[in-house]
Order: sequence, then structure tokens, then C-alpha cells
Amino acid sequence: MELVGLADVRAAAERVGEVAVRTPLLPFPGDPDRRLWLKPESLQVIGAFKVRGAFNAIATLDDERRRRGVIAYSSGNHAQAVAYSAHRFGIPAVIVMPDNAPRVKVDATRSYGAEVIEVPISDHAEVAEALAVKRRLTMIPPYDDAAVIAGQGTVGLEIAQDLPDVDVVLVPVSGGGLAAGVAVAIKALCPSAQVIGVEPELAGDTAEGLRVGRLVDWPVADRARTIADGLRAQPSELTFAHLQKYLDGMITVTEDEIRSAIRALAHQAHLIAEPSGAVTTAAYLFHAHELPRGRTVAILSGGNIDPHLLTTLLT
Amino acid sequence: MELVGLADVRAAAERVGEVAVRTPLLPFPGDPDRRLWLKPESLQVIGAFKVRGAFNAIATLDDERRRRGVIAYSSGNHAQAVAYSAHRFGIPAVIVMPDNAPRVKVDATRSYGAEVIEVPISDHAEVAEALAVKRRLTMIPPYDDAAVIAGQGTVGLEIAQDLPDVDVVLVPVSGGGLAAGVAVAIKALCPSAQVIGVEPELAGDTAEGLRVGRLVDWPVADRARTIADGLRAQPSELTFAHLQKYLDGMITVTEDEIRSAIRALAHQAHLIAEPSGAVTTAAYLFHAHELPRGRTVAILSGGNIDPHLLTTLLT
Repeated sequence: MELVGLADVRAAAERVGEVAVRTPLLPFPGDPDRRLWLKPESLQVIGAFKVRGAFNAIATLDDERRRRGVIAYSSGNHAQAVAYSAHRFGIPAVIVMPDNAPRVKVDATRSYGAEVIEVPISDHAEVAEALAVKRRLTMIPPYDDAAVIAGQGTVGLEIAQDLPDVDVVLVPVSGGGLAAGVAVAIKALCPSAQVIGVEPELAGDTAEGLRVGRLVDWPVADRARTIADGLRAQPSELTFAHLQKYLDGMITVTEDEIRSAIRALAHQAHLIAEPSGAVTTAAYLFHAHELPRGRTVAILSGGNIDPHLLTTLLT
Repeated sequence: MELVGLADVRAAAERVGEVAVRTPLLPFPGDPDRRLWLKPESLQVIGAFKVRGAFNAIATLDDERRRRGVIAYSSGNHAQAVAYSAHRFGIPAVIVMPDNAPRVKVDATRSYGAEVIEVPISDHAEVAEALAVKRRLTMIPPYDDAAVIAGQGTVGLEIAQDLPDVDVVLVPVSGGGLAAGVAVAIKALCPSAQVIGVEPELAGDTAEGLRVGRLVDWPVADRARTIADGLRAQPSELTFAHLQKYLDGMITVTEDEIRSAIRALAHQAHLIAEPSGAVTTAAYLFHAHELPRGRTVAILSGGNIDPHLLTTLLT
């Protein structure tokens, strides 16, 4: 299997610079020793890093395919990422969303001009695959794709540029696209740094998989228990191969630790994180004894939290 | 009266780069025409732009005075800015705070190693002035100081660098240090851009003062009505002279508009703003008809909002 390399990530950075905010590294306030920095991908226009991979995937299509348009299925940030990227290219986008997706996400996706088709979540993939063939649209996968992985890797490239002597990078793991891309970039540019993946305990399939040395499959119902709705997916063969080769370890965090980290990010760093985006800060705050010491970057992957959940957590 | 010039702001940028986060310009989500960008100074370590001016003022002291230490009086972000800057220089700092200041601000100021002295707010200035003489400490004023104005001006310098064809810059006005510095930089580097000050209606002394052509004095009790606790001060002769020369206009916003802007910033941009930091977004969202058209930057000056007020507003 061919893995993504640093050259792919660098090429992605050239393309992605056009739409992605160059997010700064933020020293975490109330950390007098200056050991923790946040990489706030919640500040992207769509509220999450996903725009990097989606835009890169669309940018690398040949002109003719791109003109015909793209399709994706997602209930989450990938939907908005594909819709927004297609809007920036001025091409058609169809997004298949589950009919129980939050109204606010459906509306945001439509606001970029995408055609949204709502179907029962069990028909999600099938409807999208059929439509792709019928309308000759190109499927943009959320993580199982070299161009998507390379695009997400630009987060790692920026970390390496801004803090070349970084010791530890904490990255959320779900389908593994972000973790794979970041690990490729960091390991190439900062070889002495360690890249640690973070998962909720309740969706700890990758931690288990890396321990036993192969992809493991957790029942969907189990993974659905975590409030970190963006971390319920599992790696593909392609992303898992990257994680096996490049990750130095995994940390799992509890639901209470995720909630506390959301509060700390809001009150101390003035950043609104979604649960999936807060797991890395949770790992730093509550699992210091399991982590290597030194200059640490926590990737805050997104901020699209349900407004009601946010107020509940902050109260 | 000698005004601050672009060279002063440029010199301040050299110094301030060491402690201030280089905040990015963030396209405001849900603004498909891409006409509004946010400058999120809430992401500074102390949660507000104030660290720029305080650090620059301390950096420009001669070595001997600096070694003796600094003093400031403030209930707000200036207290933390001076404490944090002194900590970075490794010099003593005394901060005189009102004895009704929020616990969280007193604790934050102490966390940087400053000596905090709590006195009734009416004795604030007097106690600080007396201590400055007695202990031979240098007073760092919150805005009535050329080095402070030049430091705050680095916000404008960065805007001009990142968006050279900006048409409108919206800046909060209280004591006028930020507005003065930003206007100096923008008018020098982007001469066709307009710089518009924003105040709460309930503390609209500067809007009135610029209309009648001289400093006006509003009773403290009147200015204290606004929830924008950082915008209750009034310009000094020095800052007012800059505003008269460089500002293109003023907008005043209502308390409800400020509250709505805090909600919009949280839910759409994933940023926590304090009321004073949200007035510029409020001006953009609710006073479009009073504003020049074009590429607009709203300076989000700080994020230090009372946690209870925040949850009340988001519910």
C-alpha cells in the first residue's frame, strides 16, 4: 500500500492556502511554564479542519471531472467542508445527510449552495454511491483517500513551521485522516517529536487496534455512546497503515474529562470547542503521567458544538 | 502635542512580537460575500490586546527604571497585561485593584507573580500614585501614554499587512489607546481605508466629544450602565487628539445589539467575546446602513467575560 509522503502534504499546502485560515499556535493561558500550545482549527470558516482535506481532494481532480461536480455523505463537518470547497470552485455539490442530522448543520451545508438530500442514516452510503454513478459525480470520502489525508496533513506542516522544536503533538483519532496526515508531516520535519493519538474511551477502537496490531471493529452502538460525535468513525486500511507506521502512542479520555476540557478551553482560552476537538486538551490536562514531557501542541480540531450542549456544559 | 507616528508603531511591533500572539484575520462564517473579517485579540494569553501596549511601555523604560519595577491600577485587562508583561521581563509589579474586582481577575493577576493590593475603588489612583513614589516604581498607564498607544497600534499594523486593501476598520473606543494606535497605522499604510470607532450608546462620550469638537465628560454613573465594562473610560487629551485627527466616524450600539453580537460570535465564529470586544461586530451586523461599504475588519478586542454572564447570554 502506498502511503502519503511529505511531498504530498507540501503540495496540498500550496492548494489549501487559498481557503484555509493559517491558524496560529496559541499558548494555553494559565500555563506559566508555557508547555502547551493549542492549534485552533475551530477557527476555520466551516468550524473544523475538514476543509483542508476536502478542498485538496477537489483541487486534485482533473478539470473535466471537477466541472461535473462532487458528492459526499456525512452528518458532520465533512458535509460542510465539501459543500464549502465546491462553492469556492464554483462547481455543483450534492451532500447526502441523515434525516436526523441537526437542522443547523443542514442549513449551513445548504448555505454554501449544495444540494442536500436527507435520507435515513442506514441508506446514507448506498444512496450516495448510486447518485454518484447516476449523475457522474465524484465521491469525496471523509478520510479514506490519499488527497484527503495530505490535505489534513497541512495542520502538521504548520505546527512544524511555527514550533520546530515541538516535543509532543496530540491529535484526535476517528477515521484517522487527520492523525495520519499530521503524523506524516511531523515525523518528516521534527523526527524527535512524538505524535500521540487521542480517542474517547467509549470509542477506543484505534487504541485497541494498534495494541493488537490490526484493525478492530467496534459495534456502532458502542461508539455512539461518546458525546464526541466526530470521533465515532473507525480507520480504513489506508489510514490505519499510516497510524501503525507513524503514531507513537494513544491516549483514551473519559466523557467527564472531555466536558472539563470544553469548560477550560472556553473560560481560559476563550475558544469554543466541540467534544471531538477537546479530547486533546483533555489528554494534556488529565493524563500528564502517560505523556512524554516537553513542548506540547494539542490540535483543537473543531468548534461545531450543539448550542444547547454548550450552555449545559458551561453552566 | 506630539502624536504617535507609524515609526513608533513599527518599533513597538519589533518588541511586542516576543509576547503577543500574531492573531490571524478570520473570515466571519455565514458571510458568503466575505466582507467581514475578525481580528481576535481575545486569543492573546491574557485574553485581550492590552498586553501589546503594556509590554511596549515596559520595554521602552531604561534598564535601571525597569529593574526597579512597575505599578498600575486597573480592575480590568490592563491589570493582567502589566502583571504578565512584568513577569516576562522578570521584574516586580504592583497592581492596585478595586476591592470589588471579580475574584477570577485578581487571581489571574496574582498568577503572574504580581503583588495585588485591593482598595476601595475611589482610592484606586491615589494609593497607586503614592506607592509609585514611595517604592520608586514606574506607573504604566492604561492609555494616556505614547508607548502604550504605539503598542496597541501593532493591531493596526498587522491588519494592514494581512489585508492591504481593507476598506473599513471597526475599533472599540474607551480610553482611546487602541483606537488611536490602530488609526495611526491604518491611515499611514492604507490611506483610502476608513477607521470607525465604536462605543456603547450608554457610554457614548467620545461620539459626542468628536461631534462637538472637544473632550466631554460623562458622569461615571452614566457610563457604568453598559455591560461593556471595558468601555467605561474616557479619552485623555493625548488619545483624543489622535482620534480627532485620524478617525473617520463613530457608531454607537445598544446593549441588546452587544448581546446579540456575543451570541453570533460564539455560535458562528466559535469565539468567546467580552461585551467590549463584541461592539464592533454589533456595529457591522446592526448598523450596516451607517457604514461605508467594502472589506471590513472588526477588532474583537478581548474575551474576558464573566462566566455567569456568558451562560446567561448563550441560553
